[in-house]
Amino acid sequence: MIFVGERINTGFKDIKQAVMDKDPQPLREWAKRQAAAGAHYLDVNLGAVSTKPEDMCWMIETVQNTVDTLISIDTNKPDILAEAIKVCNKPPLINSTTAAQQKLDAFLPIAAEYQASIIGLSMDESGTPKSADARVEKAGLVLAAAMEAGIGPERVFLDPIVMPLKYMQDQQKEILEATRQYKLFSDPPPHIVCGLSNVSNGTTHKKLINRTFLVMAIACGMDAAICDVLDGELIHAASTAELIMNREIYADSYIKT
Amino acid sequence: MIFVGERINTGFKDIKQAVMDKDPQPLREWAKRQAAAGAHYLDVNLGAVSTKPEDMCWMIETVQNTVDTLISIDTNKPDILAEAIKVCNKPPLINSTTAAQQKLDAFLPIAAEYQASIIGLSMDESGTPKSADARVEKAGLVLAAAMEAGIGPERVFLDPIVMPLKYMQDQQKEILEATRQYKLFSDPPPHIVCGLSNVSNGTTHKKLINRTFLVMAIACGMDAAICDVLDGELIHAASTAELIMNREIYADSYIKT
Repeated sequence: MIFVGERINTGFKDIKQAVMDKDPQPLREWAKRQAAAGAHYLDVNLGAVSTKPEDMCWMIETVQNTVDTLISIDTNKPDILAEAIKVCNKPPLINSTTAAQQKLDAFLPIAAEYQASIIGLSMDESGTPKSADARVEKAGLVLAAAMEAGIGPERVFLDPIVMPLKYMQDQQKEILEATRQYKLFSDPPPHIVCGLSNVSNGTTHKKLINRTFLVMAIACGMDAAICDVLDGELIHAASTAELIMNREIYADSYIKT
Repeated sequence: MIFVGERINTGFKDIKQAVMDKDPQPLREWAKRQAAAGAHYLDVNLGAVSTKPEDMCWMIETVQNTVDTLISIDTNKPDILAEAIKVCNKPPLINSTTAAQQKLDAFLPIAAEYQASIIGLSMDESGTPKSADARVEKAGLVLAAAMEAGIGPERVFLDPIVMPLKYMQDQQKEILEATRQYKLFSDPPPHIVCGLSNVSNGTTHKKLINRTFLVMAIACGMDAAICDVLDGELIHAASTAELIMNREIYADSYIKT
């Protein structure tokens, strides 16, 4: 399982304030905590706090000065990506392109040039599709365009776009079915990722819903998640699901305490 | 989700002793506790304690004198089934037949006569198949024979036969894939059930493995389980998975405490 730590994001108040004040401490602390919890990537998201590429670069450099975990550059702005990727010590994960031609044209050449991996959302300028089939169609467009740009499936992370259970209950099965079909696109298959916390948006049992959905998605082939890597029960559930999928070898001590 | 309480089984020492002593109290207590926890059926298993049908009848009558939950008659002996089913107040769930012709010939006419439901194990006299495809073949034989005997898919519970994760790790994906394919057999589809606790046999994190496997199986279409219905975390995980599958309507209060 590939875990992307979600926490260095200005959607969280402490990170927003830290970026506004250029105070590195909160970023450093979350970088350390998420890295210690086993995150493979740390998502870095400037959000609406600033449109200046140098602010994103400051965030990334602050994280890289603290831990050597890979960076996930979370932006939908090509000009921010173009500058941010230059300061990454190792090829990052770009979060994200869509299937819209304009996005593909802007993001894929940068990903190819820097040997980066890239998340492809199964949507385009017309919005997020409702059915599994339409999700498969959009994701297929991203994968084909990435491969044409020289980015192999092992560097593509398809995202079926997780919707809140509470408000879009009928979408969940479609998302799981799309996940299952993504796995059939190529051999080796692309990675499949989701922004997990969205599924529990507005609910009263967020952690239970997050880990239950993730385990179901793993059963359908998902192998990556942008999530709260400090949620021990989530990590234990995912580790167990990976054993059931035969991706890791069983040992009585597989749960690290 | 259809929950079958696993606890009234002479594999458990207290039940074994109670049956040998004809002491109704332990059976009554487990009947009450499992019914209160929401079991839809109570599995009743005489095991190797006795070969006398009247002992199984005594167990069933003891349970029925305590709660009005449906009975699951757990025996592989047609002569025990033939007597036990006569004392059931309502049509029971028969646990179980296999695809072996001799078993089908013995169990299906009884199920048909008493309007019972029946569990069909995806195995025959040659043992349990290893691949998903062979499991699908055996389960298909049971379903076809049941339908021919006048037992519709809504009364057939196909069982892919859950194997211990610790000893047969490579079987888990096959079991999940078989589950997914069982759902395609008919419309309406048959039920799909498993003896859940077997998956965690010999492991150090039994409850975590049980609930993770069940949630993954629900993602593949499983809708019933013979399990520890008193395991609250298991029930909560299954309830959450059912919401994700859109089988129940979401409410903030869906977890009953």
